[in-house]
Amino acid sequence: MSALKNIKLILAYDGTVYHGWQRQKNAVTIQEILEDKLSMMTGEPVTLLASGRTDAGVHALHQVCNFKTNSTIPPDAFQRGLNSLLNDDVLIKEASYMPDDFHSRYDAQGKIYEYRILHRKEPDIFLRDFSWHIPWDLDLADMEECLQMVLGEHDFSAFKSAGSSNINPVREIRKADLQRPDTDNILKITLEGNGFLRHMVRNIVGTIVEVSMKKRTVEEFRNILESKDREIAGIKAPAQGLFLTMVKYGPNT
Amino acid sequence: MSALKNIKLILAYDGTVYHGWQRQKNAVTIQEILEDKLSMMTGEPVTLLASGRTDAGVHALHQVCNFKTNSTIPPDAFQRGLNSLLNDDVLIKEASYMPDDFHSRYDAQGKIYEYRILHRKEPDIFLRDFSWHIPWDLDLADMEECLQMVLGEHDFSAFKSAGSSNINPVREIRKADLQRPDTDNILKITLEGNGFLRHMVRNIVGTIVEVSMKKRTVEEFRNILESKDREIAGIKAPAQGLFLTMVKYGPNT
Repeated sequence: MSALKNIKLILAYDGTVYHGWQRQKNAVTIQEILEDKLSMMTGEPVTLLASGRTDAGVHALHQVCNFKTNSTIPPDAFQRGLNSLLNDDVLIKEASYMPDDFHSRYDAQGKIYEYRILHRKEPDIFLRDFSWHIPWDLDLADMEECLQMVLGEHDFSAFKSAGSSNINPVREIRKADLQRPDTDNILKITLEGNGFLRHMVRNIVGTIVEVSMKKRTVEEFRNILESKDREIAGIKAPAQGLFLTMVKYGPNT
Repeated sequence: MSALKNIKLILAYDGTVYHGWQRQKNAVTIQEILEDKLSMMTGEPVTLLASGRTDAGVHALHQVCNFKTNSTIPPDAFQRGLNSLLNDDVLIKEASYMPDDFHSRYDAQGKIYEYRILHRKEPDIFLRDFSWHIPWDLDLADMEECLQMVLGEHDFSAFKSAGSSNINPVREIRKADLQRPDTDNILKITLEGNGFLRHMVRNIVGTIVEVSMKKRTVEEFRNILESKDREIAGIKAPAQGLFLTMVKYGPNT
């Protein structure tokens, strides 16, 4: 029997000052600061696997990652230890033992992203890092119509990252909702899917915003989706409005 | 007739990275960055008068200041110009000409402060700079009882800053409300008065929190207020929960 333990972490982070999840040279990332603290605690090199990367400036209310370790430190001590070592823009919400074969990315069955738009004339300095400020008129019925179109299984090549690798571009969107603003002027777009291509949520949101600004028609949106052509989609919505809010796993994970 | 114009600014700021309102050596303050941008725009030294200072880390939704200038730049151009020059944690909401004798501080007839407490077990990383996180039980009825006591005219020496100058410590509190948390777990204490001593809101809130945690009794709170003794009050609530939300002037200002 292996002495190696497999530990899952559920965490939240304010992505404002980080260059995204994935470790890279010359830029501070969330993976790097977590691996550094875990190595400090365990006395061994630690490699973290996440459910997926998030880009620079993108936030997470519920991200999942796991690591294997020889350490006998129990999960709740990892949680407390990390929370005392980490800056207060990253929070470990839960830590638990998992079966040997649990893998944060391969086992993920679905993800939910939320995109927040501050829809009013005046900016809100307290939301500048947590929303996209749009002072113009928006046709919310158009927005809802476009969201209906992305539901179901589609080849989302039109909304993938310009430089993204040659992976299977088919994803299933299970939920595409608009929560209309109440008194706080915050409009929320929720997308749930079995997975997302890089920049897919931001490219969909940016293009939908162009439609609701009447710069494009709803019919054009349908054509863009069906074209599978990255070149004709609209702008990419800014990172700071995007939140990873949930990663879903099967009943035994 | 004087060519000198008197211009009033209404502004909001996220105080997180600033060492408060008032200009000081070796630390960046809001007064300093505003005066620097105004001097840049007018080509002359500019001195800003505010309704009052705010401390390091304290925020403002509505602060008022004014300056005199020979410049012929109209107020709305000052607003646009400043907003393009300033970092996005400071926002000029309004700029207008005022009579020669308008003075942001002397003419202020009242101020409203709001103190925000995140009352739940788990911290919220997105509110860490904008609330006091209190994970313990709080007796909100006790809190309301203490707030009732500060209403009216009192000598608030017991709640002034330890090192504050020898000014008249009598202030009138016109409103002292508790807004109980709804689904967001945010509890808001609103204090409106004709003026406030330095640290007075934070010292009152800190002491009231101690009462609602049952570390002190409501009766002790009354005794502290009546004692006028700075030494026996409770802790000072942290700066990041405090917001200056309004400065009130007479009908002609």
